[in-house]
Amino acid sequence: MRSAIYYRPHDIRIDDVSEPAAGPGQVKLRVAHNGVCGSDLHEYYSSETFVPVEPHPQTGVKAPVALGHEFSGTVVAVGEGVTTVADGDRVAVRPTYTCGECPSCRAGAPNTCRVLAFHGLSGHGGGLSEYTVLPESMVFPLPDTVSLELGALVEPMAVSYHAVELSGIQPGQLAVIAGLGPIGVGLFFALRAAGITDIIASDPSAERRAILTGLGARNVIDPTATEVAVAARGATDGLGAHVVFDAAGVGEAIITGIGALAPRGKVVVVGIHEQAMELNPVALLLGEAQIVASLVYTDDDYRQVIESMARGEITGAGWVDHAPLDDLLEVYGQLRRGERMKVLIDL
Amino acid sequence: MRSAIYYRPHDIRIDDVSEPAAGPGQVKLRVAHNGVCGSDLHEYYSSETFVPVEPHPQTGVKAPVALGHEFSGTVVAVGEGVTTVADGDRVAVRPTYTCGECPSCRAGAPNTCRVLAFHGLSGHGGGLSEYTVLPESMVFPLPDTVSLELGALVEPMAVSYHAVELSGIQPGQLAVIAGLGPIGVGLFFALRAAGITDIIASDPSAERRAILTGLGARNVIDPTATEVAVAARGATDGLGAHVVFDAAGVGEAIITGIGALAPRGKVVVVGIHEQAMELNPVALLLGEAQIVASLVYTDDDYRQVIESMARGEITGAGWVDHAPLDDLLEVYGQLRRGERMKVLIDL
Repeated sequence: MRSAIYYRPHDIRIDDVSEPAAGPGQVKLRVAHNGVCGSDLHEYYSSETFVPVEPHPQTGVKAPVALGHEFSGTVVAVGEGVTTVADGDRVAVRPTYTCGECPSCRAGAPNTCRVLAFHGLSGHGGGLSEYTVLPESMVFPLPDTVSLELGALVEPMAVSYHAVELSGIQPGQLAVIAGLGPIGVGLFFALRAAGITDIIASDPSAERRAILTGLGARNVIDPTATEVAVAARGATDGLGAHVVFDAAGVGEAIITGIGALAPRGKVVVVGIHEQAMELNPVALLLGEAQIVASLVYTDDDYRQVIESMARGEITGAGWVDHAPLDDLLEVYGQLRRGERMKVLIDL
Repeated sequence: MRSAIYYRPHDIRIDDVSEPAAGPGQVKLRVAHNGVCGSDLHEYYSSETFVPVEPHPQTGVKAPVALGHEFSGTVVAVGEGVTTVADGDRVAVRPTYTCGECPSCRAGAPNTCRVLAFHGLSGHGGGLSEYTVLPESMVFPLPDTVSLELGALVEPMAVSYHAVELSGIQPGQLAVIAGLGPIGVGLFFALRAAGITDIIASDPSAERRAILTGLGARNVIDPTATEVAVAARGATDGLGAHVVFDAAGVGEAIITGIGALAPRGKVVVVGIHEQAMELNPVALLLGEAQIVASLVYTDDDYRQVIESMARGEITGAGWVDHAPLDDLLEVYGQLRRGERMKVLIDL
């Protein structure tokens, strides 16, 4: 079968590899769609971050690895002992392997597992393959009303839903989304699903602002033209935002976010930052501000996203499109240049 | 009367000024003791931070200003309409003037008042004077069992009690105190008063470690010899600290604190940082860590500290000593060189 294999930065190949079989407790999928993630681009253009160059402490895997961690598919075989899914089931995949033994897992925070691994980065296979095999615990059946296209979006949407849950934001409070890439779009869906109606969506890109407007956002700003703090205070009789979500992954979004907060407000960091930032903690002091980081998701986030999709609260219309596996690296270039928003590779 | 007046960095004078009188709603105190605070040293040795060089937006005050914001005294006169204190009452003072009108005050977070002013930095008088006059709302009667010496410590202790309250730490969780100056000592008292028994107290200074040991701390470490993260994990079966209090005011304490946290743990910043720090937000991501800033105190913190003092949970023994007003600048030098811990100026 065909599979995208990551060897090293600037070296990804579509290889012909042997088709995997489902062992005991495992599920074999015919992959439908696999989304390209910003972290994939980082691994390709910059350096190995999630792809291990030494054997991964949990999975033992190291480069070259099969890529693709945002995917959906149809069950084509199940191994001995599998009871929750069967042939023909359409499923989303939680690509994280958690150890269940480290202090984080034992403390009930498996998303912060100390040896977290990812199917498609540091796992046993990836979603940019015709077939892949996973433990039963990592597949989530989709209801009939949720398409396989949406199924491939569950992973990034779960990142966003987790961040909104972690933020503790309540209806009546103002949220700012800084950075309107796919995670920013997901934050918009998650906030609306949580009953938050006061949302400022901010991005320097006119294309991305137009997408959010098309999705129903009413207060969409260009932070290079309108100060986020001014917009936030203007929308709250001077108070400011209870939560600013940094989905931009740049220090500037955190600094301007702190300035836009209400007293005891939070900046929730969702983006991966490639560079260190300069921060004077005194900036946090004057309003007793918080910086909180949000990392991937839990099973509960997966269930919430799938239920939200079934209620029609998440759509791919206007921001998601498709490409064949052969175009993978061309798509990388387009995403890197900001020419496309979210691309699902059809397998 | 004699009063310490701040003119500019490196220029504080003991001047002879006229004795103030209590107007309507005001209370006149004969000051007993006034503690020297790290922020006083900053104003003197470095630059005006809390002392306004232009008229303060709330009080209209600018340098030269009367110094001293950590003090206790005895009521010698009350103005018209004062009902809660009377001549002869011994009181502690909350030196913050809050405006009651800004979004922070209206949101119930007066400690983050957007135009916060301080008696003794940007207010109408200071505690390094024989007499001073304050609004009734800023004085807190001391019970018979709480000395005027302890009364002068209510202000710094309220900083620490506020930070512990804000941290949300619960009995059974591990706290790390990074920096064992007066605020670190207060954090130790506040944690014990909150029923927290698992405490690591950390400071490079052997003298300060000895003081904490003398106060009853059992796990006192030198962070230059023992990694804070190693100590925290060692004390928690690998989990880490739920809260690290940065009472050191240096970026290094925050960075090493993040590394010592349990999943979803918090670094609570209590110290004033003079310098910006370099932070890669990815450091927060792996454990979903938080950085939270704690700013001064509320009336409730004052009441809690005074009750805690009445229960005997706070002592000045072993870390507080006294000096006359004439020695003020000599004391500044000793504090700056780390030769003394906490000095109360007797008035």
